Amino acid sequence: MKISARNTLKGTVKQLIPGAVNTEIVVEIAPGVEVTSIITKASAESLGIAEGKEVYAVIKSSDVMVAVD
Amino acid sequence: MKISARNTLKGTVKQLIPGAVNTEIVVEIAPGVEVTSIITKASAESLGIAEGKEVYAVIKSSDVMVAVD
Amino acid sequence: MKISARNTLKGTVKQLIPGAVNTEIVVEIAPGVEVTSIITKASAESLGIAEGKEVYAVIKSSDVMVAVD
Amino acid sequence: MKISARNTLKGTVKQLIPGAVNTEIVVEIAPGVEVTSIITKASAESLGIAEGKEVYAVIKSSDVMVAVD
Amino acid sequence: MKISARNTLKGTVKQLIPGAVNTEIVVEIAPGVEVTSIITKASAESLGIAEGKEVYAVIKSSDVMVAVD
Amino acid sequence: MKISARNTLKGTVKQLIPGAVNTEIVVEIAPGVEVTSIITKASAESLGIAEGKEVYAVIKSSDVMVAVD
Repeated sequence: MKISARNTLKGTVKQLIPGAVNTEIVVEIAPGVEVTSIITKASAESLGIAEGKEVYAVIKSSDVMVAVD
Repeated sequence: MKISARNTLKGTVKQLIPGAVNTEIVVEIAPGVEVTSIITKASAESLGIAEGKEVYAVIKSSDVMVAVD
Repeated sequence: MKISARNTLKGTVKQLIPGAVNTEIVVEIAPGVEVTSIITKASAESLGIAEGKEVYAVIKSSDVMVAVD
Repeated sequence: MKISARNTLKGTVKQLIPGAVNTEIVVEIAPGVEVTSIITKASAESLGIAEGKEVYAVIKSSDVMVAVD
Repeated sequence: MKISARNTLKGTVKQLIPGAVNTEIVVEIAPGVEVTSIITKASAESLGIAEGKEVYAVIKSSDVMVAVD
Repeated sequence: MKISARNTLKGTVKQLIPGAVNTEIVVEIAPGVEVTSIITKASAESLGIAEGKEVYAVIKSSDVMVAVD
């Protein structure tokens, strides 16, 4: 499946923090560069997310803000 | 200013594509790893975004989806 | 690719309205039930979106609000 | 109240899964076509959401992504 | 129509900036306090948005970030 | 840090409702005008959010919908 979201960043699950409702997933997309995602616990389980697994962090370009110092 | 968005990824503006309404900004956050943002033209101008400038790609963790092959 | 977004609604492109920056896509997901999407023109072109094509409308559950009369 | 969100899909609450923080609501918008929403428990209670109730699934067009096989 | 979005802020349209694709709407929600919205041109026209008109700025609580100095 | 989000509304934390996963924050941005935010518990703690603290409610203009009666 190819999706309209412009950012599909390949990486590895570094940390998985399951919560009561949501699961927090830390994905390493480059050495020392991590992206944190929060998805529902149900989705994390249905996708079989586990530490060390290869995943994609998918982000719409309109959801990426830009900031400067 | 510190913000509640969990992802504040430091990078450099690699490409700037101004449009009629929005401006597309490609940020290199690690060698060969790029994130595309679309913000309003007004915001891009008020932040002084230019190629080569150091910026942060700011993304809420709830806006990061996860996908698997 | 399987994605964490909970709603992946199969349908057919009923109408395509390309704009200067964005493209509006009307997807029929059931007889008489339509969902309107706006994605960037670049994404619409790269996905080869055309009227009559079979697509999925992908929506995060946290992006679906509920209203009552 | 009329709202700028382009998708206001009429349907019936098929399933309600209250959680500690959020409530998951499955809305049938056409025979066999369901949309899953997650809203805060407080909102679900204040709207009086219950199985069998007629509701609208409200979605901004910019929150609808499109995918192809 | 009552909606699950937690923020429904009553105000007056102070400025309307129609663009090729989107329309920018500045809503004064309290003396000197303005909220800027960008919706599609089609939505702005179908809602009859005009300067001086009474409107609601509707925002999901999960779309409100918090920042500190 | 200056950010591309168009709405940075200064206010005071009026109420803080920590949950298992998320924290609900009510910010008074003008006398009697409140904005409710939901952020992760971790973010609320790392930002040191407390009742009476001065904060900014940060909202992308594309996340502000407009409604009319």
